[in-house]
Amino acid sequence: MATLIKGGSVVSATGRHPADVLIDGERIVALFAPGTGPQDVEIIDATGKYVIPGGVDAHTHMELPFGGTHASDTFDTGTRAAAFGGTTTIVDFAVQRTGEVVQDGLAAWHAKADGEAHVDYAFHMILGGVDDDALKAMDVLVADEGITSFKLFMAYPGVFYSDDGQILRAMQKARDNGAMIMMHAENGPAIDVLVQQAIARGETAPYYHGVTRPEALEAEATHRAIQLASVAADCPLYIVHLSASKALEAVAEARDAGRNVFAETCPQYLYLSLEDQLGAPGFEGAKWVCSTPLRSKHENHHRDLWKGLRSNDLAVVSTDHCPFCMKDQKELGVGDFSKIPNGIGGVEHRVDLLYQGVVDGKLSLERWVETIATTPARMFGLYPRKGVIAPGSDADIVLYDPAGRTRISAETHHMNMDHSAWEGWEIAGKVDTVISRGTVLVRDGEYHGRKGHGRYVKRGLSTYLH
Amino acid sequence: MATLIKGGSVVSATGRHPADVLIDGERIVALFAPGTGPQDVEIIDATGKYVIPGGVDAHTHMELPFGGTHASDTFDTGTRAAAFGGTTTIVDFAVQRTGEVVQDGLAAWHAKADGEAHVDYAFHMILGGVDDDALKAMDVLVADEGITSFKLFMAYPGVFYSDDGQILRAMQKARDNGAMIMMHAENGPAIDVLVQQAIARGETAPYYHGVTRPEALEAEATHRAIQLASVAADCPLYIVHLSASKALEAVAEARDAGRNVFAETCPQYLYLSLEDQLGAPGFEGAKWVCSTPLRSKHENHHRDLWKGLRSNDLAVVSTDHCPFCMKDQKELGVGDFSKIPNGIGGVEHRVDLLYQGVVDGKLSLERWVETIATTPARMFGLYPRKGVIAPGSDADIVLYDPAGRTRISAETHHMNMDHSAWEGWEIAGKVDTVISRGTVLVRDGEYHGRKGHGRYVKRGLSTYLH
Amino acid sequence: MATLIKGGSVVSATGRHPADVLIDGERIVALFAPGTGPQDVEIIDATGKYVIPGGVDAHTHMELPFGGTHASDTFDTGTRAAAFGGTTTIVDFAVQRTGEVVQDGLAAWHAKADGEAHVDYAFHMILGGVDDDALKAMDVLVADEGITSFKLFMAYPGVFYSDDGQILRAMQKARDNGAMIMMHAENGPAIDVLVQQAIARGETAPYYHGVTRPEALEAEATHRAIQLASVAADCPLYIVHLSASKALEAVAEARDAGRNVFAETCPQYLYLSLEDQLGAPGFEGAKWVCSTPLRSKHENHHRDLWKGLRSNDLAVVSTDHCPFCMKDQKELGVGDFSKIPNGIGGVEHRVDLLYQGVVDGKLSLERWVETIATTPARMFGLYPRKGVIAPGSDADIVLYDPAGRTRISAETHHMNMDHSAWEGWEIAGKVDTVISRGTVLVRDGEYHGRKGHGRYVKRGLSTYLH
Amino acid sequence: MATLIKGGSVVSATGRHPADVLIDGERIVALFAPGTGPQDVEIIDATGKYVIPGGVDAHTHMELPFGGTHASDTFDTGTRAAAFGGTTTIVDFAVQRTGEVVQDGLAAWHAKADGEAHVDYAFHMILGGVDDDALKAMDVLVADEGITSFKLFMAYPGVFYSDDGQILRAMQKARDNGAMIMMHAENGPAIDVLVQQAIARGETAPYYHGVTRPEALEAEATHRAIQLASVAADCPLYIVHLSASKALEAVAEARDAGRNVFAETCPQYLYLSLEDQLGAPGFEGAKWVCSTPLRSKHENHHRDLWKGLRSNDLAVVSTDHCPFCMKDQKELGVGDFSKIPNGIGGVEHRVDLLYQGVVDGKLSLERWVETIATTPARMFGLYPRKGVIAPGSDADIVLYDPAGRTRISAETHHMNMDHSAWEGWEIAGKVDTVISRGTVLVRDGEYHGRKGHGRYVKRGLSTYLH
Ligand SMILES: [Zn+2]
Ligand SMILES: [Zn+2]
Ligand SMILES: [Zn+2]
Ligand SMILES: [Zn+2]
Ligand SMILES: [Zn+2]
Ligand SMILES: [Zn+2]
Ligand SMILES: [Zn+2]
Ligand SMILES: [Zn+2]
Repeated sequence: MATLIKGGSVVSATGRHPADVLIDGERIVALFAPGTGPQDVEIIDATGKYVIPGGVDAHTHMELPFGGTHASDTFDTGTRAAAFGGTTTIVDFAVQRTGEVVQDGLAAWHAKADGEAHVDYAFHMILGGVDDDALKAMDVLVADEGITSFKLFMAYPGVFYSDDGQILRAMQKARDNGAMIMMHAENGPAIDVLVQQAIARGETAPYYHGVTRPEALEAEATHRAIQLASVAADCPLYIVHLSASKALEAVAEARDAGRNVFAETCPQYLYLSLEDQLGAPGFEGAKWVCSTPLRSKHENHHRDLWKGLRSNDLAVVSTDHCPFCMKDQKELGVGDFSKIPNGIGGVEHRVDLLYQGVVDGKLSLERWVETIATTPARMFGLYPRKGVIAPGSDADIVLYDPAGRTRISAETHHMNMDHSAWEGWEIAGKVDTVISRGTVLVRDGEYHGRKGHGRYVKRGLSTYLH
Repeated sequence: MATLIKGGSVVSATGRHPADVLIDGERIVALFAPGTGPQDVEIIDATGKYVIPGGVDAHTHMELPFGGTHASDTFDTGTRAAAFGGTTTIVDFAVQRTGEVVQDGLAAWHAKADGEAHVDYAFHMILGGVDDDALKAMDVLVADEGITSFKLFMAYPGVFYSDDGQILRAMQKARDNGAMIMMHAENGPAIDVLVQQAIARGETAPYYHGVTRPEALEAEATHRAIQLASVAADCPLYIVHLSASKALEAVAEARDAGRNVFAETCPQYLYLSLEDQLGAPGFEGAKWVCSTPLRSKHENHHRDLWKGLRSNDLAVVSTDHCPFCMKDQKELGVGDFSKIPNGIGGVEHRVDLLYQGVVDGKLSLERWVETIATTPARMFGLYPRKGVIAPGSDADIVLYDPAGRTRISAETHHMNMDHSAWEGWEIAGKVDTVISRGTVLVRDGEYHGRKGHGRYVKRGLSTYLH
Repeated sequence: MATLIKGGSVVSATGRHPADVLIDGERIVALFAPGTGPQDVEIIDATGKYVIPGGVDAHTHMELPFGGTHASDTFDTGTRAAAFGGTTTIVDFAVQRTGEVVQDGLAAWHAKADGEAHVDYAFHMILGGVDDDALKAMDVLVADEGITSFKLFMAYPGVFYSDDGQILRAMQKARDNGAMIMMHAENGPAIDVLVQQAIARGETAPYYHGVTRPEALEAEATHRAIQLASVAADCPLYIVHLSASKALEAVAEARDAGRNVFAETCPQYLYLSLEDQLGAPGFEGAKWVCSTPLRSKHENHHRDLWKGLRSNDLAVVSTDHCPFCMKDQKELGVGDFSKIPNGIGGVEHRVDLLYQGVVDGKLSLERWVETIATTPARMFGLYPRKGVIAPGSDADIVLYDPAGRTRISAETHHMNMDHSAWEGWEIAGKVDTVISRGTVLVRDGEYHGRKGHGRYVKRGLSTYLH
Repeated sequence: MATLIKGGSVVSATGRHPADVLIDGERIVALFAPGTGPQDVEIIDATGKYVIPGGVDAHTHMELPFGGTHASDTFDTGTRAAAFGGTTTIVDFAVQRTGEVVQDGLAAWHAKADGEAHVDYAFHMILGGVDDDALKAMDVLVADEGITSFKLFMAYPGVFYSDDGQILRAMQKARDNGAMIMMHAENGPAIDVLVQQAIARGETAPYYHGVTRPEALEAEATHRAIQLASVAADCPLYIVHLSASKALEAVAEARDAGRNVFAETCPQYLYLSLEDQLGAPGFEGAKWVCSTPLRSKHENHHRDLWKGLRSNDLAVVSTDHCPFCMKDQKELGVGDFSKIPNGIGGVEHRVDLLYQGVVDGKLSLERWVETIATTPARMFGLYPRKGVIAPGSDADIVLYDPAGRTRISAETHHMNMDHSAWEGWEIAGKVDTVISRGTVLVRDGEYHGRKGHGRYVKRGLSTYLH
C-alpha cells in the first residue's frame, strides 16, 4: 500500500513549498499540491515539519584500521546511528594499502558491509599506492564497480602518502575516465618533522597534535593539489575535511578561475577549536584528535568556513566519521600525541549540527538541504536517486521538526563510542521521522529498521562538474 | 479539464529526471513518476523534450523614454515576443524621473502595461532622484506595491545619476526594508569627459561609444557600489548588465568575502564584441550601442563571463531588452554616437542563446535552467510561484526541444524592431511549447496567446540572500 | 672655511659606511674614507653618530585656512620647529580655492613664506577648482614655477572637492606635462551623509569624527583614484596620508600590476588609534581630529602600515603637519565634531618617531633614511639637491645620535601649539646637529638658525617613476 | 699612485650626479664634486660615461658537473669573460652532493677557484643532502667560512632534490643562524612524470624540455617554498631563476604580506621564449635548454618580469651562467631532451642586456644599477665592500658608455662556448672600462687583467632583510 506524507513543507536546494509526497514501494512516485493527492493510502502527517531528502554523508570510515586499532563503528552500528541522525546514505572509504591489489581492498570492504548496513551505502576508493596496476584498476572500478572517486593522501608518509608524481598520474587517469580525485591536503613530510621535534621537546599532550599541523601546511597542500590538477588538464578535485581559512582561500581562488575544484568541511571545524577542545586539560583533548586538526579560535576559521558554505566555496558538509573510544583506543597515545588514533565520530549529528546554522542565521534553510543532501548526491553520482524529493527518486526522506530540540550525549547516542565530541550540546531542531527506500527506520524516537536493509549503491560520474 | 505534460524530462536547477507534470487551471498540481499520472486528462506529449520552468527575464525596458524617443516595444509587442522565446515572466523597470513623485512614475508604468501584456510581469523601480520623499516611497512600494528592488545609476549625470551620498541613503533604506538595490555601475562623470573629448576629436562613429566607456570605469563603479553597500551594513546589491572581466573580479572578491553581492550579465556580453559588432562599417554599429558597451575581443571578457556564470559569480542572465529601430531612432546619432539611443532588443532570444552555451559545453543543463528561470525568480521574490516546476507553482512551463534549431532574423522575430542584433544566427535547440499560467501561448510555432492574459505580479523580498 | 664632518657613519638608502663629509659653502664637496680628508678645516665631530641627509617633509600646511581659522604655525614658527626635528626641507601646499586663479593662490603662498622660513621649502599646488584655466595653469606651474605636483580632493564637497570628471581631466594634463597627481582619497559625498546622520543622532563627540569616515570609504576612494589614473594613461598618482589596511591593499595591488602609484603615511597612523586618542574622554579627542582619521586598534592598521613601509607599498612618511590649538581653534567644535578644524601638528617629530621604528625592529636603518629623506626628494623632483649625501648636493645634513633619547611635550616643543599629539612620549634616538645648506641650525639643543635662511626651491619632475 | 675617475656621472641605486672618484690602492678613498679633487694623480677620463659599481653576478656555475659532463667555463675562463662584461664579483655555487660531507664539497670548490679567478668571487653552498651533519655544517660555514646562503632543490629527485621535511629543517637552521635559503623552485617529482610520458610518446626534441616543465609547477613550488619558510618562522627565502608570471605572483603576494621573500630572474627569461629559441628547428633549441625553462611568448611572461623588476618583486638579475658547448655536451641529448645538460652561458652579457631595458624604457638607470650590483651585494652580505661607489668600498668600478653599442657573438665573446644564446644581438650601450680592486682589467676593449687577481671574499649576513 502506498504512503502519503501529508501537510509538510517540502524543502529543496532552491526553495520550499507545501506539498504532499506519495511513496509507493521503495520510490517516490508523485508530489501533489496540498490536499490533492490520493485518499486511499497510508498517511504520515507532516504538519509543521520540513520534508527533506535523506541526508547523504559523503565521508565515513566504518571499521577503518588506523594506528594499530580499528574505528569503533561497524557498518551495523555506524549506519544505524546514521539513520537516527537523518542520514540515509553514506559513502565510505574502501582502502587499498600500499602493495595491495586495489580490487582486493575493495572486496574486503564489501565483505565488511555486506548484509550489515541499515541504510544505503556506496564506496570511494582510497589509493595507498599509485602504480601501473592501480591506475588500471581505476578504470575498472569506474566502469564496473560504481566507484567514481579516488582518495589520495599528501600526508602520512609511509602509510597512505602519495608523492606528487603519483598524484599527477592518478589525476591524469581520473581526467580520462571522468572520476573525481579526493585529496587529504596536508604536507605530511613537513608535519612529520614538526611532530618529531615536538615530541623531542616533551610536548606530548593532545594539544600539540594541532600545533604541529599548522594552517600553512594545509593551505600549501591544498594549493599544490589544485596546481597538480591543473597540470592534469583540470582534473576534477575535491578537497576533503577543509579546516582552515587559508586553505579555503586557495579553493576560492581556483573556483573564481572557473576550475573544477570543490571542497567539503565537517561540523567539528565549524564549531570546535584548538584551545577549547584539543587543549582540554590532561588527556581529555584526545577525543578531538583528528586530521586536519581543530584550528585556533583566535583566528577566524569558524567565521570563514560558514562564509564559505554560504558562497559555495565549500560545497558539502560531511562528518569524516572515524570513531575511536577513549578506552584502549585513544589511550594508545597517552604520553605521545602522535600515537593517538585520528578521528572523531559524528555520523549521527551532522544534520542537526548544520540545522543549528540555520537557526543561528548562518545558512538558509535551502542551503542546509543542499549541503547535507543534494550536493553530495550530485557530487558523487547518486543524483537523482538520492539527494532530492522528486518522482522516481528513492524514497529516502526525513521529516524534520523545527520546533524540536536535540540533546547530544554519549549516554543517548547510537554510535559505538564511549564519549561524544559534542557531549552535553543542546541544539534547536530534531529529526522526527526517517524513511529509507520507503521503509520507516525511525519514528517518534523509536527504531524500526534492521541490519541488512541498506544496500550497496553503484554510483555514476559526478553531475556537478562545470 | 486538467492537462498532463507527459513523457518529458523535467530539468531543475539541481538535476533532471523523467516525470509527468499535471496542470489544473493556472497551477501545477502534481508531478508523477513516468506513466503513473491520471489518464482522463488532456495530454501534451513531451517525449524527447526538456520540461523547464518558464523563463524569467529580470531586466526589460518596454516603451522606455530615452534620448528623445521611446523603446520600440510596447508591453503588447514585447511580451508577445517574450512568449515566443520561452519567457513567461518579465520584470520591467518603472521609472521615477528626477523631480517626479515615485508613485506617479509607478502609476504611469502600470498604465502602460495594464491589459496589454501577454505574459506575467512585475516591476522594479528606477529612482532618478533620491531624496526624503523618495526614501519614504521605497517603504511604501515594498509594503504595498510588490516592488522590492530599486535601481540606481552611477552613470548619466543630469538624467538618472545619483551621487554617492544619495546611493548610500537609498542603500541604508533598502537594508532596513529588505529591498534589493540594483546598480548601473559605470562612472558617468568620467565617461562624459571621455565622450566630449572623443566628439571634439571627430571620433563620432558608434565604435567610439565603446571606447569612451572603458572597462576600468565599469570596474571602478562596481567596486564603489560594493563598498558603499558595505557601509550600508551590507545592503543587498545586484549589479546589472555586467560586461567586463575586471568588474566580474570585483564581484567575485565581494562574494568570496561572504557579501550579499549579485550580478547579472546579458547574452550580448557573452557573444558580441566591440570590434565585430560595434565597430561594423559605417553607421551599422549603432545597432549594438548599449551601456555598458560591448567589450574588446582581444581581451578575455567572453571567456571570463562564461566562467562567472558557471561559478555563480554571475547569478542571472537577463536581456536588458531595450529595442530601438535603426530608422528614426538609432539614426538620431548619425554623426554623433552620443545621440544614439542606448539599447539592444533581445527578450525573444535569451533562452535560446543561453542554451547554445549548453551545446557548446560552457554551461550545464541545470545551470541553464537556474540562470534563466530559477535564480531570477528567487532573486526577485517570485519563487516558488515562478521559476520552478513544483506542485502549487504557476503553470509557467516551456517544452524545449534539444533536437530543434533556431534561426534568428528580423524577418521572423516578433519584437518591434527593424533589425536584429543576432541577424542570421542559427543555433541549436528550439522553444517548442510555451505555457503561461496553464494556457498554451505557443505551440508548433503558432501563437495562441492574447493581449491581456499577462497579469501584474506583486513580488516578495528576495529569497536568495545569504 | 670648509667644514669636515668627521668620524660618523654615513647612512644612505642602501647602506651605511664610515665616511667623512666635506662641506664648502652651501654644498657638500667631497666624501672621504675615514681620516683621509683635509686637515685645515673646521671639524664637526660625528663620532658615534649617524650622518644622514636632512629630512624632507613632503606634506605640510603652514597657515592653512580651514573651517574659519588658520593652521597655527606660520612659515617662521613651523620651519623652525622642523629644523629642531631634523627636517631641512618642507614641501607645503599652496592653495587655489574654487573660483580663484591658480597663479593668485600661488602668489599668496609665496607671500606667506617669503623671508620667513628657517629651512628650504617648495610647494605643491592644491587645485580647488579644475576647469580650463586651471588646466592651463598646471602647464605654467610645471614649466616656470618649479611646481610639479597637484593635489586634488575626493572629500570636502563644496570646499576642495573635485568630481571624477574634473579629476580625470587633471590627470590627463599631468600625464602630458609629467606632473604628479596627489590625492586626498576619501569619499566625501558618502562621508557627509554619515556625518549629518551622526550629528542628528546626537553623536557629537570627537570620536564620531572617526566613526563617520570608515575605512571602506578611504579604500573606495583610493581604488577609484587608481582606476581614474589608469584611464588617464597611467598618470603618476600619489595617495596622501594613507591610514588604513584596505587602502593599502588597493595601492599594493596597483603596484604589483606595475602601475605608477605611490603612497605616503604619517606617524599618527603608525602609532595612534581611534579608541585611545580620538576616543579620549570629553573633548580631549579633538586634538587628534584629522582626515583621514585615526583607525581602530582592534583591526590591524598599525601592523599593516609598518609592513607597507618595509615593502615600499608606502614610499614616504610625511607629517601632514596642520596644527590647531585647542583654545579658540579645536574648541570651535565643542558639541559638533564636524566643526573641529582637521589637523595634527607634527613637523618637529617625524624623524624621531620613525627612528623609533628602527629601534623596535620594524624598519631598517637604511629604510628609515629612505622614507624620511631620499624617497620624498626623489618623488618630488628635489634629488640630488636634497635627500642624499653626495658631492654636489646641498649640505643639508643631520647628525643623529642613536644613544640619545627624545621626550616630546608641548612644554618643550617649538611648534606653535598649546598641546602635543604625543605629549609625554619618550623615544630612543635624538637629533644632535642640523645643518641646512652648510649652516648649522641646531647644535647641542641650541638654535643657531634664523628666519629667512630658508629659500624657495623650484622642483623638477619626479625621478621616482618607473 | 692614486687614480681619479674624472668627469663622469656617478649612478647609484637612488640617483645620479656628476662626481669624481678617487682610488688609492684597492679602495675608493673619496668622491669629489666635479673638478674639486686632487690634481697630482693619474686621471681616467669618464666624460660622457656612467660611473657605476662593478656588476655582481650572484648566480654562476663554473665547472659544475651536470649530466655526465662539466660546465665548460673554468674559474679562469668564466671570470675573465665576466670582467669583459663589467661584472667584477661572482657568487658561485659550491656543491655538496648527496652523501658527501659539506665541508669536503666546499674544499673542492676552493680548489677549483684558487689562483684561477680574474675577479673576486664568493660562494653559496648547494646542499644535496640535508641531514644532521649538513645542518651542523651550515652553522660552521656561516660562522667561519663566509658562506651565508644555502641552495636547495625542489627539482631533480635522486640528484639534488630535498623533500619538504628536509627543506623545513634547513630553513629552521637558517632562521637561527641568519643565513638565506635559496630555492630552485620546480616540482621535480611531477615534472619527471611529464618528462617520461613525453619521451614515451616520442616527443624528444628540445622544445619538449619546456613543455614538460609547465608554469604551474614552478608557481606551485614557489608557493610551497614560501609556505615552508613561513612555518620556519619566516626564514629568509630567495627564489632563484624565476621565469614565469604565476611564480612572480606568488612572490608578490608574500612580499605584500611583509614576508622576507626575494627573487631573481635572468636575462634569458626577460628576452627569450619557448617558441623562438627552445623551439628552434632540429636540435638547435638545445642551446637554450635550461631549468626553469624559457616560457611561451603567447603568454605575458616578459611583460610581467620586467614589471616585477620595476616593482622590486624581482630584486636581482643574475645569469645562472652554466655553459655547455653544443659539441660533445649539449649533443648528449640528441634524441632525448632529458639528456641535454641544462644551462645557458651569459656571465659576460648581463650588464649590457639589462642596460637594453633602460634604453627600451622598461627600467630606470638607477634601477639598472640596483639590480645588477647594489641589491645582489646587499642581499648576499657583500655590501658596502661591493655594490656601491663610496669611500672605503673596494674600487670595483665600471665606466659604461651609453653612446656605445655591443654586438654579441660566439666569435667575439670570451666565454668557453662554441655558440652564443644571443648570437647576433646588437644592443645599445657598452662596457668601456672595468676596474677591479683598483686594477684596470679592461680598457678600450683590451684586456689587462690576469688569472689570480680575483680573490675569495667571505660574505656577511644579508643586509637586505626587512
Ligand atoms: Zn577521512
Ligand atoms: Zn543600465
Ligand atoms: Zn568565489
Ligand atoms: Zn537596463
Ligand atoms: Zn594635508
Ligand atoms: Zn636551479
Ligand atoms: Zn607588492
Ligand atoms: Zn643555477
